[in-house]
Amino acid sequence: MNFASDNVTPFCPEILAALTQEGKDNAPAYGGDDISQQLDTAFSQLFDTDVKVIPVATGTAANCISLSALVSPYGGVICHHEAHINEDESTGVAFFTGGAKLLPMDGPTAKIEADALDRFIAGQANRGVHSVAPECVAITQASELGTVYSVEEAHAIGDVCKKHGLRLFMDGARFANAVAHLGCHPADITWKAGVDAISFGATKNGAMAVDAIVLFDNNLKTRVEQARKRSGHLHSKHRYLATQLLAYVKNDVWLKNAGHANDAATVLADILCQHGATLAHPSDGNELFVHLDTDLAEKLRAAGVQFHPWPSLGSTVYRFVAAWSTDIAQVHELNARIS
Amino acid sequence: MNFASDNVTPFCPEILAALTQEGKDNAPAYGGDDISQQLDTAFSQLFDTDVKVIPVATGTAANCISLSALVSPYGGVICHHEAHINEDESTGVAFFTGGAKLLPMDGPTAKIEADALDRFIAGQANRGVHSVAPECVAITQASELGTVYSVEEAHAIGDVCKKHGLRLFMDGARFANAVAHLGCHPADITWKAGVDAISFGATKNGAMAVDAIVLFDNNLKTRVEQARKRSGHLHSKHRYLATQLLAYVKNDVWLKNAGHANDAATVLADILCQHGATLAHPSDGNELFVHLDTDLAEKLRAAGVQFHPWPSLGSTVYRFVAAWSTDIAQVHELNARIS
Amino acid sequence: MNFASDNVTPFCPEILAALTQEGKDNAPAYGGDDISQQLDTAFSQLFDTDVKVIPVATGTAANCISLSALVSPYGGVICHHEAHINEDESTGVAFFTGGAKLLPMDGPTAKIEADALDRFIAGQANRGVHSVAPECVAITQASELGTVYSVEEAHAIGDVCKKHGLRLFMDGARFANAVAHLGCHPADITWKAGVDAISFGATKNGAMAVDAIVLFDNNLKTRVEQARKRSGHLHSKHRYLATQLLAYVKNDVWLKNAGHANDAATVLADILCQHGATLAHPSDGNELFVHLDTDLAEKLRAAGVQFHPWPSLGSTVYRFVAAWSTDIAQVHELNARIS
Amino acid sequence: MNFASDNVTPFCPEILAALTQEGKDNAPAYGGDDISQQLDTAFSQLFDTDVKVIPVATGTAANCISLSALVSPYGGVICHHEAHINEDESTGVAFFTGGAKLLPMDGPTAKIEADALDRFIAGQANRGVHSVAPECVAITQASELGTVYSVEEAHAIGDVCKKHGLRLFMDGARFANAVAHLGCHPADITWKAGVDAISFGATKNGAMAVDAIVLFDNNLKTRVEQARKRSGHLHSKHRYLATQLLAYVKNDVWLKNAGHANDAATVLADILCQHGATLAHPSDGNELFVHLDTDLAEKLRAAGVQFHPWPSLGSTVYRFVAAWSTDIAQVHELNARIS
Repeated sequence: MNFASDNVTPFCPEILAALTQEGKDNAPAYGGDDISQQLDTAFSQLFDTDVKVIPVATGTAANCISLSALVSPYGGVICHHEAHINEDESTGVAFFTGGAKLLPMDGPTAKIEADALDRFIAGQANRGVHSVAPECVAITQASELGTVYSVEEAHAIGDVCKKHGLRLFMDGARFANAVAHLGCHPADITWKAGVDAISFGATKNGAMAVDAIVLFDNNLKTRVEQARKRSGHLHSKHRYLATQLLAYVKNDVWLKNAGHANDAATVLADILCQHGATLAHPSDGNELFVHLDTDLAEKLRAAGVQFHPWPSLGSTVYRFVAAWSTDIAQVHELNARIS
Repeated sequence: MNFASDNVTPFCPEILAALTQEGKDNAPAYGGDDISQQLDTAFSQLFDTDVKVIPVATGTAANCISLSALVSPYGGVICHHEAHINEDESTGVAFFTGGAKLLPMDGPTAKIEADALDRFIAGQANRGVHSVAPECVAITQASELGTVYSVEEAHAIGDVCKKHGLRLFMDGARFANAVAHLGCHPADITWKAGVDAISFGATKNGAMAVDAIVLFDNNLKTRVEQARKRSGHLHSKHRYLATQLLAYVKNDVWLKNAGHANDAATVLADILCQHGATLAHPSDGNELFVHLDTDLAEKLRAAGVQFHPWPSLGSTVYRFVAAWSTDIAQVHELNARIS
Repeated sequence: MNFASDNVTPFCPEILAALTQEGKDNAPAYGGDDISQQLDTAFSQLFDTDVKVIPVATGTAANCISLSALVSPYGGVICHHEAHINEDESTGVAFFTGGAKLLPMDGPTAKIEADALDRFIAGQANRGVHSVAPECVAITQASELGTVYSVEEAHAIGDVCKKHGLRLFMDGARFANAVAHLGCHPADITWKAGVDAISFGATKNGAMAVDAIVLFDNNLKTRVEQARKRSGHLHSKHRYLATQLLAYVKNDVWLKNAGHANDAATVLADILCQHGATLAHPSDGNELFVHLDTDLAEKLRAAGVQFHPWPSLGSTVYRFVAAWSTDIAQVHELNARIS
Repeated sequence: MNFASDNVTPFCPEILAALTQEGKDNAPAYGGDDISQQLDTAFSQLFDTDVKVIPVATGTAANCISLSALVSPYGGVICHHEAHINEDESTGVAFFTGGAKLLPMDGPTAKIEADALDRFIAGQANRGVHSVAPECVAITQASELGTVYSVEEAHAIGDVCKKHGLRLFMDGARFANAVAHLGCHPADITWKAGVDAISFGATKNGAMAVDAIVLFDNNLKTRVEQARKRSGHLHSKHRYLATQLLAYVKNDVWLKNAGHANDAATVLADILCQHGATLAHPSDGNELFVHLDTDLAEKLRAAGVQFHPWPSLGSTVYRFVAAWSTDIAQVHELNARIS
C-alpha cells in the first residue's frame, strides 16, 4: 500500500470518462471552447458568489501565479515556515512575483494563529524602502501537516489581514480534504473569511493534472491571465483542463474523493495506534504524522507499506497520506498483516 | 470542417488508450516512475544519440525554458520576425531568461537564411556591455508559415552558429510535420546540424497536452530541470506527460499523424486551387496560406469551413491548417460542396 | 579637441563649488537631509507644476526605473529604433520592468512622428494575452540623432498616447539642449504635452553623476522609490545627488551650459561645412552628424580632433558632440588649423 | 554630535582634493580613462594578488551585483539574520539574481560561526529541484553589530564553504574598520580565507559615493560587468568613481579613516561606561551597542548627541556609530557635559 503521497495516485474514473468523451471532436483553443466557458458559472455556484476561474496544470503554478497578482515585486508574503511555497516550490514565488520575499513565521502544526500573525505583522521592520513590507498572507488549507483551519480560525486570520490592509491567499492543494473535514460550505472558509484568491487543488484528489486559480476579486483576473500566458501555463487544448475540473466538481466528486481519503486516514490511524503508534498531532484530513518505533516501522515496510520519515517533527515521526483511491478494505487487512 | 488551427483537435486514440491504461495504479511522483524513466531511452533511440528529455505541458514552456538554459539574462536570441517566441508568447522569453532580448530578423516564408543570418550577426552592434550580444539562434521547424528547412538549410544555419559561437535552438512545435515532409531521419535536422535543444511538439499533432524539451547537450539538463520546477512546470503526476509522449513516438504514431496532416493539406490545396485560389507560397507541411477571392471565401464559410485571415501576408490571404484528425474523405467532398 | 561625446567632460564649476561647500558637515542619510528636501520644490518651480523628484546617478537608471513604474511586466514600450533604451542600455528595460518588451519603430532623424505612431499602435498585434500590448511610448528629447521635438510635435505625440490610453515617457538625457534650442518653457514639452515622467539629464551637461527622475504623476512615486531602493540606486549620502541637481538648476546653469553646447555645435557645423562637409540632417542641439570625405576626416584627426564614425547613417557619416565645456574660441581656431 | 550612522558624514579632504583635480579635463567615458585603468593594479597591490575591480556608487549595488554572479536564479545564499542584504536591501538580492533565496541563520553578535554554518548547511533540505540548495555564503566584515571576524574565524568559514562547494562573499561595507581593528593584511581575511568577491566599502568611511566590487576570481568579471551595465550602475563619467577609490586607498587613507573611527568609538565607549552604560557586547570597530538607562539617554540627547535605539537587542539598547570625521576632542568634552 502506497501512503507516500496523494500524488502517487492515478486519476479517478469520472475524470477518465469525461476526458474520453471530450477526446473526440474539435473545439476552439485557449479557452474559447464551450467546456471552458462553463467554469466560471460552475465555480460561482460552488462558492455561492461570482468568481473567475483560471485553470493551470500544477499547484506550484496556481500558487505562484496567484501571488504574482497579489503582491508587488518588492513586497512580502507572510507564510508558515512549513508552507509548500516556502519549502517545496524552489524559488517559484520570487520568480513569478519578480522578487517578492517570503516572510515565514511559526505556529503549531503548520497553521498560522491569528494572534501570532497580528504580532508578527506588528513586529516586521518598518523602515520604508529599506525593509520588506508584508502585502499578503498565505495560508494552506488543509495545512502541510494535515491540519485544518476551522471556520473561526480562517475568519480570524482574515480579520487580521483586513486590519493591516493585507491580501489573503489560500493554498488549497488539499482544500477538498479541509471542506470534507469541516463539513462547511466552501464559502465559509474562503471569501466570507476574506480570502482574495485560492488555488483549488484537484490533482492530488483525483485529477490527472489540474488545479484552479479561483479569484474572489475580479480585479485580479487580467494580471493572472497575463501571468499564466507568459509563464507558459495557458494550454492550447484548454478544454482538457476544464474537462477535468468540471468532472471533478460535478456531483460533488471532489468531496466524495476527499471524504474517502479522510476516512481512510482515520482507519489507518486507528490501526497504527492499536499497534503502538502515537499521533504527533491530531489529523484533520488525509495526512497522518505518527511516531513509530523501529519495530513497527519495519513490520509495515515488510508488509509492503510505503511512507516517508518526517524528520522536521522528530526522528521517529513518519508521514502517511491516504487518498481518494486508497482501498479501505485493504487498510483493514493491514491490521492482521502486521499483528 | 475546422482548419482554424491544429490545436482545435482532440487527442488521438493511441494516447487515449495509453492514458486509460496508466490511469489505474499508483506510481512515484515527479518523474520517479517507470514510464518517465523510459523517456531518455526512447528519445535517444529516436534521435540516434544520447539525449535528455524533459516534458512539459505547453510549447511556450518548452521554448522558454529551453532558451533560459541557452542564453544569459543579458544576451540576445536571434529569431525570425514571425517566430512564435516573438509574436505569440507574450513576454515569455524575457520572463524565463531574466531579461534576454529577442533580435528578430527577416527572411522569406518565415525562414532564416544562412547567408542573411551571417550578415545579421555581423551587423549586430558590438559595443561591449552597452549593446546586446546574440548568444543563440532560434529557428522554427516547420516554420510559422508552413515551410520547412531542408537538411542542407538546417546544416547551413548550424554552421553559421558554430562560426560565431552561438547556440542553436529549434522550436519544433510542428517538428513531426517537418520530418514527415522531408522524409529524413530526425537526427539529420537536429543534432547533426548543430542543434543544442529542441522543443519536440506533440500537442498539435495528437497529444492532449505535452511537448518535450529534448537536449542534445547534456550539460543543459540541470538548468532546464531547475527552470521547469521553479516555473511550476514539473507535474506531480509526471507519468501522464511521459505516457502521452511514449504513446506518441511508439510505432511512429507521431510520423503517421503528421504525414496524414500533411497529406490532408495537399488535398485541400489542390481543391482550393481548382476553385481559383492561389498559394501565397508553397506549403511544406500541414499549413496552407492561400489567396482567396471574396466569392470563394464566402462559399467556404457557407460550407461550414473554418479558417483565419492572415493579414501579415496580405488582405486576401487566409490560413488553413490540416491536422492528424482531418477527415480526408470529407475534404474531397468539399470539392463538390463549393462547386 | 574632444567631440567624442558629452560624457567625456568634467563637471562644471558651479557643481564643484556646491559639492565643496556641502562636503563639510554631517547630515541625515537617504534623502532626509535639508538639501534633498528642497528638490521637489525647486523642480516644481522649474516645471511650474507639482512634481516629485527622485535622483539617481545614471541615465540608464533614470530611464529604466521610470519605465518600471509605467508598464506591466507583460507590457510593451514603443520607442524609436535608435532610442538609447533600445540600443545602448543592454537589457536594462527588461530587467527593471520584469520582462516588458521594447517595440521599436522608425522615423526620420530618430524622432517618432505622431501620425506614424498612431498607425504603429493600430498595427500592433491584438491577440489578447498572446501578443504584447503597448502600454507606454518613450521619446528622447533631444533625440539620439541630435534633433528636437517641437512643442507641437511633442503635443501631437501626447495626443496619440492619450487617444490610445498609453503612458508617455521622455528620456531627457539632453533635455536641457532641447529646451535651450526651443526657447520654450520646460512645461511646454513635458506635462503640458502629456508626459508622465522624464529622466532629467544632468550628467552630460555639467554634473558629475546625477540624472533626476521627475514625475508629473504623483501616483508613480511609491513604485519609483521602491524600484530605486531594490536596484541599489538609493544613495546613502543622498545629499550629494541633490547638491549637484540644485546647483545645476540654480541660476539656470542647466540652460546656460546647454545653450553654450548648442552654440559650440553651430560654430563647429559652420566650420566643417566651410571645409566641404555636409550635414546628414539639420542639428537642433549639441550633436552634429556630418558627411566627411576621407581627406577632411584625416585633417581633423591630424589636428587632434576626436569624433566617432556613425555607420548607421552611412559609411562617411561622423558624429561630433559639443558640450558645456567646449572652448568656442578653440573651435574657431580649428578653422585655421585645417585650412 | 551625530552618532546616528557613519553615512551621515561628508566626504574626506583627500577625496575632495582628488575630485577637484580631476574636475578639469576631458577623459574617455565608461572606464576607458587613465584613472579607471589604474584600479586593478592599485587593488591588486593592496590585496597582494591579481584582482578585478568594478566600482559602483552604493553598497547595495556592490552586494547584489556580486551575488548575481555567484549564485543561480534558483540558488540559495546563506547569511546571518542581521545581514544587511537580508534586513536592509529590500528585495535587492532576489531582483539582481533573478530570484535566488536568502537562507538566514543565527549566530552571536551578527556573526556566523563556522561550526554552526557546517550544521546549517547539512540541515538544509535536499530534495532536488523542490528545495533551494545553498550555493553561496555571505558574511559581513565588520558585522552589522560592530563585531569583526578574526583571521581564524574567516578561514574557518572559508573552509566550511570549500567543504560544501559553496562560494564565499564578503559584504565589506566596513571592511576598513575590520582591517584596522585586526591589524592584519587585507589578504588574510579575504582571498586567503577563500573569499571569492568582496564589496569594498568606501562611502561610509570617507568617500562621497563609491563602493568597489573586488573579484578574487577573474571568471566572475564578465557577469559582474554585464550586471552592472543592465542595472544602470555603469557611470558614464566612471573616472569619478575611480578617482574617489584611488584617493581612498592612496597613502592608506582608508585605514587612517577607519582607525580614527574605531578609536573614536573606543573613547566614546569608555565615557558612556563611566556614566553607567554597559556594552551589549564588545565592540570591534566603529559601532557601539550599549545599554542606557533612561536618565543617561536623556542627558545625551539634551547634550545634542544623536543615536538610534536598537530594539532587536533589547528595549534599552542603543547604537552609536563613530566615523572618520568624528571629532575625538569633542567626544572627550562630552564627558564633562553629561556629568
